[in-house]
Order: sequence, then C-alpha cells, then structure tokens
Amino acid sequence: MTNDFLISEIRKKDSFLCIGLDVDLNKIPKHLLEVEDPIFAFNKAIIDATNHLVVAYKPNTAFYEAYGIKGWKALKKTIDYLNINHPEIFTIADAKRGDIGNTSAMYAKAFLEDLGFDAVTVAPYMGKDSVEPFLSFKEKHTILLALTSNKGAFDFQTQIIDNEELYKQVLKTSKSWEYSDQLMYVVGATKAEYFKEIRKIVPNSFLLVPGVGAQGGNLQNVCKYGMNEDVGLLINSSRGIIYASNQLDFAEAAACEAEVLQKQMKAILYENSHSV
Amino acid sequence: MTNDFLISEIRKKDSFLCIGLDVDLNKIPKHLLEVEDPIFAFNKAIIDATNHLVVAYKPNTAFYEAYGIKGWKALKKTIDYLNINHPEIFTIADAKRGDIGNTSAMYAKAFLEDLGFDAVTVAPYMGKDSVEPFLSFKEKHTILLALTSNKGAFDFQTQIIDNEELYKQVLKTSKSWEYSDQLMYVVGATKAEYFKEIRKIVPNSFLLVPGVGAQGGNLQNVCKYGMNEDVGLLINSSRGIIYASNQLDFAEAAACEAEVLQKQMKAILYENSHSV
Repeated sequence: MTNDFLISEIRKKDSFLCIGLDVDLNKIPKHLLEVEDPIFAFNKAIIDATNHLVVAYKPNTAFYEAYGIKGWKALKKTIDYLNINHPEIFTIADAKRGDIGNTSAMYAKAFLEDLGFDAVTVAPYMGKDSVEPFLSFKEKHTILLALTSNKGAFDFQTQIIDNEELYKQVLKTSKSWEYSDQLMYVVGATKAEYFKEIRKIVPNSFLLVPGVGAQGGNLQNVCKYGMNEDVGLLINSSRGIIYASNQLDFAEAAACEAEVLQKQMKAILYENSHSV
Repeated sequence: MTNDFLISEIRKKDSFLCIGLDVDLNKIPKHLLEVEDPIFAFNKAIIDATNHLVVAYKPNTAFYEAYGIKGWKALKKTIDYLNINHPEIFTIADAKRGDIGNTSAMYAKAFLEDLGFDAVTVAPYMGKDSVEPFLSFKEKHTILLALTSNKGAFDFQTQIIDNEELYKQVLKTSKSWEYSDQLMYVVGATKAEYFKEIRKIVPNSFLLVPGVGAQGGNLQNVCKYGMNEDVGLLINSSRGIIYASNQLDFAEAAACEAEVLQKQMKAILYENSHSV
C-alpha cells in the first residue's frame, strides 16, 4: 500500500485508528473457546464489526507465538481474511524484529511477502544493515521503534548522545538509509510533549502511536503536537477496544469503543481543516 | 539448566561450541528436499553427528518463521528432539525479542516454557520492563544483545553516552535488574579487542559470541580477552559448520568442521589450566 492510498483512506473514513489484535484466550468471551479456532473467530468478529471505523489492524506476533502452531495458523487466517476481504486496510505485523542482514531478510520475507502484511515493526538496536532488508520491499513499510510507551523507554532511548537523546539519533540516522521514505516510526502516546521535537526531525513520516487508552495516552495532546498536514498518525488501541466486553456482545461493544475514538478523530480532523 | 551444569558440561566435553541451526532450504543437500520435513531431517542429522562436540545449539527463529507453519513445526520438533535425547545440551532460541512488559511475558512463555528452550536472545532497546519478564523463569537464561557482530553495531551501540558506549550502558544498567544473575550477553567476535573492557563490567557472565567463522571472528583473540575462570564463553558457528557440504556426507562434514573448532577449544582450555 502506498502512503497516498493510506492518506486517502484516512480522509474517506475520518479515522486514523488502528486496532491492536492482541488476542489472549484468557480474556476473550468464554463461548468462543468452543469453536475450532477461537483466536481467528474472535479476530473475524472484531474485524467485521469495526472495519468501517479504522484504517489499520495490528496483530502483535507475541500473542500468536504464545499459542505455538495453533497461534501461527490463526495469524495466517487473520491476515488472509484481511487481505481478501479488506484490501483497503493497512496491516501491521507488530513483531519488533531485527537481526544481522541475511537474517533480517528472512523475517522481512516472512512478514511482508509470505504473510502479506503491509508493514512490520522493527527494533533499531542493530543498526542500518539490520533494518534495510525490510525497506527493500516495494510499497511495504518498516515501522522503526523510536520512543516506546513503556517505562523502560527511559533506560536507553532518552539517554543523551551528542547532546541529543538516543531516539532522536535513531530518527536522524535512519533518514539516511536506503528507501527511508518507506519508514514509519513507533512513538508512544504517553509522552505527547515529545511529538513537537520529533516532528522537527521527521515532519512527513507516519507515526504509529500505541498507548492511547489502556496505557494512558491522551488523543488530543498527541494530535496537537504530532499531526502533520497529511495527518501522519496511526493511533493504536488494543485492550480498550477488543476487551470492551467478554460477553456475547463483545464485537458490538468493541465497535462502540472504536466509534468513540473515531468520532474524536473526526472532530479533530474537522477542526484542523478549518484552522488551516 | 543452571550455570554450574553448563560449566561442568564445558569441562567434560572440552568444548564451549554452540552450533547455529539456521536452516535455509536453498542450501541444504538436495536429497533432503524429498523427505516429509526437510528442516527437521537436516537438524536431526546435524545434531546426531555433532552433539558430542558441542554444549549448545542455537536455532535462529527467523529461518523457521520464513517457512511459516511448516517452519514452526520443524522448530518444535527440533527442540523436542533435543530436550528428549540431549537434555544435557543448552538450547538457545535466537529470537531477539523485546516488547512492553505483558507482551514480553507472552514471548518468554512461548520460548522458555512452551517450547522449552533454556535461553532466549532479547533486544535491550525497550529497557528494563521489556526484559525482566524473560528473567523471571527459574533456571532459564536471557541473552541480551550488547555488541553485535554486524556493521550496523556502529550506528548506535558504540555511540557515546556519559563518556561510555551505549553497549556498556546496556551491560551496566542490566546488572541492576531483578534476577540479573540469569543474564548472558551477545558480544560479536568481530571485535575481540572490546572483550577486555566488557569483562571489566561483567566478569562472571556468560557471553554468547557469534561471528566466528563465516563472519570473520578469531577464536584465539576472543578467548584471550573474553575468557574467565569458568570459561564464560559460548562460541557460535552456523554456516561454517552446517553447510560444510551439501552432499550426502553433509553431517559428517559438519562434524569435521565442529571438531576443528572443538580441538582448538580443547587446546585453549589446556593452556589456560596450566597458565593459571
């Protein structure tokens, strides 16, 4: 998927919402545990109920690997279902991979080609040659961890190198890599004040923002500092949406929660279009 | 597996060799492609031929994910085969994972409990709460990326923070984490001169050293600067051993290559025991 197509979907749906499909069998409605593939059944119901409200879905691979082969089958069925029924939706494998060049190339092929995701999240610690293999896939996107939403982000990411935090070095350095126009960045919503600085370095890039909702981030603030003229944000919410109810009405309840966020987004987009 | 058990195996076998089981169907002998599970057949033959020469095996998960569900089945069969037939062997899932706490916990359970690996490699970029879930498993080990063997290691890992390279900050900071005695570290063999400095910070920890062989690292130098009185090193070789031949004799050829390294290790251990 091209950036332009993603932007046009955001404008069409008045939404830059991404739903994290982080399926935990301990949290989904009990009645689903009786069907053949509860993980896929849950995802399909969530997708069917919410696809008109979102522009992206993001399964975190940890939740699928935790169920072994059964989990991988459910992940494959989920991405196949999305690619066949909703090719207009941007799909992100939240895998946080990164390895030496030839090994990163294996991960890139697995997620972007074989499974057919539009994007994959990648960790920057191993540098350029660990990330570039992901960037070599046309019309695919590499979402590099910059500033994450967890407490541990302050252990290394905000440490100062050459008068500047490590995460800013990651942003700056990555801009020099081949096909860097296919880069997006993970920036945690729990630190809205950082977005202003980040936009000075990557004014045009899409930012994937986890941490709205369950992790406490504030949508208004993120948009105030992080939005650019093409919107440039994908706001992810996982638990707050998909576990809104654990009863028979779980999909409708998820759609209600998604709609709350989508309406806030619509209002922000409307405000912005009138203030520009 | 405890550190003491691993050390006793190293002493018993006069070896601190780890073989990387990075199976690429384009590189294995053609005749194996006709069997039902070529990846497992290849691994089984390599393990059967080399287990007396090594103390550890390290499948890199990228090579298995690249083959989807088939790959995960082969990974599971490989670790099951090792755990049943060679419980004395230290097994490492080279996964380089790392995510927010509750998600890291899913990865930790998948690799250390469900698959039953002794250790898993983890990326440090997301800090303490992304690593500690891995450390909470008793008699299991978390192998943190410190200084990797690729060119991209110089992009961020060797950048200076507070007068000290980032990878040294990773070593120091991680020592304060809960159950840090279960930490080991990845240190690339391509930079033997760094081991001296690293040993000042983590004198007692095991170091997993990739990059001997195909990536050009030198065993003598690594041991000179990196070995401690409990040996404290696991030297990994992948391509140089497992692809020594792509003919019918591939397992014997792999054993020959492994034996070359094991004999060098034996000589180094003998020298050291007489110089102390």
